[in-house]
Amino acid sequence: MIMSQQLAVGIDIGGTNTVFGIVDRRGNILSDGKMSTKSHDNVEDFLTELHGHLSILIDQAGGTENIRGIGVGAPNGNFYTGNIEYAPNLTWRGIVPLANLLEQRFGLPTVLTNDANAAAIGEMTYGAARGMKDFIMITLGTGVGSGIVANGQLIYGHDGFAGELGHCIVQPGGRLHPGTGMRGSLESYASATGVCNTAKEFLTTRPDAESTLRQYALEDITSKMIYEAAMKNDPLAKEVYEYTGKILGEALANFVMFSSPEAIILFGGLTKAGDLLMKPVRVHMENNVLPIFQNKVKLLFSELKESDAAILGASALAWEMKD
Amino acid sequence: MIMSQQLAVGIDIGGTNTVFGIVDRRGNILSDGKMSTKSHDNVEDFLTELHGHLSILIDQAGGTENIRGIGVGAPNGNFYTGNIEYAPNLTWRGIVPLANLLEQRFGLPTVLTNDANAAAIGEMTYGAARGMKDFIMITLGTGVGSGIVANGQLIYGHDGFAGELGHCIVQPGGRLHPGTGMRGSLESYASATGVCNTAKEFLTTRPDAESTLRQYALEDITSKMIYEAAMKNDPLAKEVYEYTGKILGEALANFVMFSSPEAIILFGGLTKAGDLLMKPVRVHMENNVLPIFQNKVKLLFSELKESDAAILGASALAWEMKD
Repeated sequence: MIMSQQLAVGIDIGGTNTVFGIVDRRGNILSDGKMSTKSHDNVEDFLTELHGHLSILIDQAGGTENIRGIGVGAPNGNFYTGNIEYAPNLTWRGIVPLANLLEQRFGLPTVLTNDANAAAIGEMTYGAARGMKDFIMITLGTGVGSGIVANGQLIYGHDGFAGELGHCIVQPGGRLHPGTGMRGSLESYASATGVCNTAKEFLTTRPDAESTLRQYALEDITSKMIYEAAMKNDPLAKEVYEYTGKILGEALANFVMFSSPEAIILFGGLTKAGDLLMKPVRVHMENNVLPIFQNKVKLLFSELKESDAAILGASALAWEMKD
Repeated sequence: MIMSQQLAVGIDIGGTNTVFGIVDRRGNILSDGKMSTKSHDNVEDFLTELHGHLSILIDQAGGTENIRGIGVGAPNGNFYTGNIEYAPNLTWRGIVPLANLLEQRFGLPTVLTNDANAAAIGEMTYGAARGMKDFIMITLGTGVGSGIVANGQLIYGHDGFAGELGHCIVQPGGRLHPGTGMRGSLESYASATGVCNTAKEFLTTRPDAESTLRQYALEDITSKMIYEAAMKNDPLAKEVYEYTGKILGEALANFVMFSSPEAIILFGGLTKAGDLLMKPVRVHMENNVLPIFQNKVKLLFSELKESDAAILGASALAWEMKD
């Protein structure tokens, strides 16, 4: 009966939508689906709809006896408790014992963690970090998330909340992060919002600098516009990436000196900028580590398709469960 | 025959002296000794003297059959290879396969790591971190060292060099560290040298500020003088600790968001300043972490006697060895 349960369920809960799917050990998504998160003010209603969708997929896959377990990625998800705790982007308030609620509904063992940790496990199981025991996953999207693996294990810390690298202060006294009230955190610079704010700052403080971005009202500027301008060689837009890459590279240097990873794996919208971002990141990372770390750490992009990554990461948690 | 080997050898190699001893499982040092490191340009000569001293202690303890193994703390010690690699403060150049050389001399399994990692294991085995699975050890002496424990294991990273938190950049573009050529690293501020440099900076840039430290020539000022002046309420000396504590506290905040430790344990000369340093450290650490981390992390002093800590830390490595 070894390895009889060859399938896992992955559920990724986002502020707007929830995606879910059934995945095999090689990372093939056999079936998947999507539903609204935010239309359910009550978590029980949410679970009822989710159970309806997923039960069909599980039946099609031969029933729960083929399923090893359920992995869930969720904002502010705590691995130790299985709870979602005070997630600012969800309509459910306070502490939601989601793993327990799912176990009751499905009768399957359930593991939950935050989305960036799930992404790290996904990358280790199916992606760019296969075979690695020490790496750091950084997600560069609307915010900056992270998952840290050392000695082959995810670092959860004593309370389940380790790996909040987006909130590290990288510019003491720097830009205000409205969500946290902190100044100079990595997320204030190296997120989609951060890139927009850098562009707005540059456009405001350098009224004489030419830029095709001046055709837009400041408040309308998106990271996509900046990316497109940079691809067309707009000097100010390119400088935005140079600046972002410098701050991110310096932050990665500090992370390297913490856990000396074999690789840092980047995922998310900002990585679409490719070399525009990665070149300065690499230069400033290498310039800010001790010689013993120089030219050792691989800087990689995620190998998972963006549309699949959330389900794969969540599902991968199920393979980590102890028997 | 379970637990028949109740003793371990601890060896701590410093740039000037090497200390060694025989330790039981409770952290009692049964016998110990000391010899010069730097008088031996050749590592084989060093080992011959060390072997002479230690053999006597081992015989007194009933012979090698009572010894579980040898643990060594050494600057730039690499746990994976057992080598000392390019240690700037040792006269031995290049790569020294010290663990292998000791195994050959003593016929005992030998484990080696850097001194701060050994201190962390020592604290976990005998000191303030007993029973903890997630903590960070910071040594504040001439330099700033660190050892990080997560999931009950020391983090060595993929190459054995993890935990160089003293070299994290905490003030981008800040004070030059002459040893590394880097600017703004934690060690430039939160070490004995850093404290002296801060005092010199304050005395120079504020010619009108009164201070009893002005009785000394700038180049003669030591961290001890600053400590004594602060204890006598010298405002400039107190401000030096305030400034040092702010920078250290901000750095600790970032470390907390990395690995979410149960405690941070401080060790070394700077901790003698007690609340002068710890009060600002605590304030600035708490002010720079996300609310989910606030008022959770214990800030502790080492519980090991400073004179014993090096031997105890090194010896504790031997208990971690796999059978």
